[in-house]
Amino acid sequence: MNGNDFLALANAGVQQLQPYQPGKPIDELERELGISHIIKLASNESPVGSSPMAMAAVRAALDQLHRYPDGSGHGLKSALAQRLGLSVAQVTLGNGSNDILELVARAYLSAGDEAIYSEHGFAIYPIITLASGGVPVKVPARNYGHDLQAMAAAVTERTRVIFVANPNNPTGTWFPRAELDAFLAAVPERVLVVLDEAYFEYVEDPNFANGADYLAQHANLLVARTFSKIYGLSGLRVGYGLSGTAVADVLNRVRQPFNVNSLGLVAAEAALDDLEFLEHARDINTAGLVQVAEGLQQLGLEYIPSVCNFIAFNCGREAMPVYQALLREGVIVRPIAGYDLPNHLRVTIGTPEENERFLESLQRVLG
Amino acid sequence: MNGNDFLALANAGVQQLQPYQPGKPIDELERELGISHIIKLASNESPVGSSPMAMAAVRAALDQLHRYPDGSGHGLKSALAQRLGLSVAQVTLGNGSNDILELVARAYLSAGDEAIYSEHGFAIYPIITLASGGVPVKVPARNYGHDLQAMAAAVTERTRVIFVANPNNPTGTWFPRAELDAFLAAVPERVLVVLDEAYFEYVEDPNFANGADYLAQHANLLVARTFSKIYGLSGLRVGYGLSGTAVADVLNRVRQPFNVNSLGLVAAEAALDDLEFLEHARDINTAGLVQVAEGLQQLGLEYIPSVCNFIAFNCGREAMPVYQALLREGVIVRPIAGYDLPNHLRVTIGTPEENERFLESLQRVLG
Repeated sequence: MNGNDFLALANAGVQQLQPYQPGKPIDELERELGISHIIKLASNESPVGSSPMAMAAVRAALDQLHRYPDGSGHGLKSALAQRLGLSVAQVTLGNGSNDILELVARAYLSAGDEAIYSEHGFAIYPIITLASGGVPVKVPARNYGHDLQAMAAAVTERTRVIFVANPNNPTGTWFPRAELDAFLAAVPERVLVVLDEAYFEYVEDPNFANGADYLAQHANLLVARTFSKIYGLSGLRVGYGLSGTAVADVLNRVRQPFNVNSLGLVAAEAALDDLEFLEHARDINTAGLVQVAEGLQQLGLEYIPSVCNFIAFNCGREAMPVYQALLREGVIVRPIAGYDLPNHLRVTIGTPEENERFLESLQRVLG
Repeated sequence: MNGNDFLALANAGVQQLQPYQPGKPIDELERELGISHIIKLASNESPVGSSPMAMAAVRAALDQLHRYPDGSGHGLKSALAQRLGLSVAQVTLGNGSNDILELVARAYLSAGDEAIYSEHGFAIYPIITLASGGVPVKVPARNYGHDLQAMAAAVTERTRVIFVANPNNPTGTWFPRAELDAFLAAVPERVLVVLDEAYFEYVEDPNFANGADYLAQHANLLVARTFSKIYGLSGLRVGYGLSGTAVADVLNRVRQPFNVNSLGLVAAEAALDDLEFLEHARDINTAGLVQVAEGLQQLGLEYIPSVCNFIAFNCGREAMPVYQALLREGVIVRPIAGYDLPNHLRVTIGTPEENERFLESLQRVLG
């Protein structure tokens, strides 16, 4: 027998998987091009680093790395529950919010089950659906954002899960309360709605629909959030799910016993209390969104209005050569052709200096 | 509709899951009993802490926690491949070796598929099999260890995976080269053999079967290892799989894009080079195994000879009350009734002082 048969022996959905493509790391570009002074605006990471209170908590925990993490996540779950006015039994911790999304797929999708997501939605939704043997159902977007009416109308007998991102990555679009109200009213109660709020802390629109407010009324709602974005803790991998207790009970059965590492647990708990850092990070981002949007306008480029820490803009031509030219300038952004946006690039909001350097490089490249 | 229906809506295997029960954390016992000076010998953690070289690498990486980890694990995978004389394409990194075991289940088990494991085998094997919709098939042990002949004979048309631990947790038993040779010859090549070597670094028997030596000849072999045990990095969650490239390719498709955190990656890479620490940890353990075995003998208690960093011993009566009495002494060990060993307790080898305190407490408790 040929060793390669172990591809053919894998579960059917797994054989179709194309792995997620992360943003290019700085040191990889350094190795490839032999250049330095690289800026990475490719993975929606925080330009202001991590919360100082989180860093202090990490340092204080360094002498106990030979101990397993608290598998129950007692401290962090209690802090989240208290902050949000929920019970501890409604919280599920994840190795990043990606882990929460996967737990849903593993618990609620099996062969032939359908999971609905939006065109231009996060690449992970169809990947994890396929990995569980499910069928990803993509619903066309409307103005680059979710068409919630069409998504609700796409529900069939086989639909088990709907993935909805608010705001959405990589487009930065969002929807208000009224739309979420109507959507949740239209979706059958047996279908689990996964509301991915990885970027919600950046949003300042008072009409924004905060998923946590909907949990009491909707047992079929799960809200997924992360410490990787505004809290600046991507490297430590901490996310969480908020839901009714039945869904949380199921996800906690499927969860790996020690899915979140010790330092992630203490860092996230401390970061929750660092309101000053949170405000600073939001302010920097809000100003950066204006700076980058104005710069793109001056270059005559269309962009998708965003409430997140990134902007997707239209190069007016195939984006990949622009991406590669920017790499040679030492500026890493993100191609999003895999999101049906072949002429767009996504740029993360950086520090004012990084934003300026990106805009200058883009001007040179587009020449 | 009732919110509790989301248990009934979960995949069939998931509904049967009983979550893994970890060892009791020290602070939990402190809260419960209001006592201090607790020692934990319950989770096979390193009594000598973490490698100093690993700790230095962690400290050097603390200013980049706002960046995502290198999703490809380039540095650690290269170091492992070089050390073991394998190619990078044969290595899969996991969020602990638990993650590697889960990737196997998710990639190769679907509804109705059988996975074979041994009586007294690690509790995670049947849990992850059920979670993937598979059927766990338990084969009776022989002298507390794996009956490899019986396990090979249990293979049916539906068998996709066999989980084998060498040495085994929680019994500490192991098998030599000749037995692994015969087993791998007897198992059909279409069945994936998962050789769990979480404790192999402790073993000093020259006849021990090192799984890495078998990879060139067996495309159906995956070796799972961890940095949680002798390397003392349980809190950072790093494990790895070694296999043929086809299996590794499949596992890397299923793997979460950032399944290992940044600090785990650098700590593990540095720990690999800390040969002095490794030797020290092994020496402490070898001496502790003798100390604890002799102490148990003096108390007239039977124990299972172990090559790991723990010993399972027979209390001569139901073990749970002994466990609870030890808790009141401030000594946490591990009940293993869930492993069909209701009269046994498992104690982790600690420092000489911890071992002595455990033995004195046990004597008082059995008194």
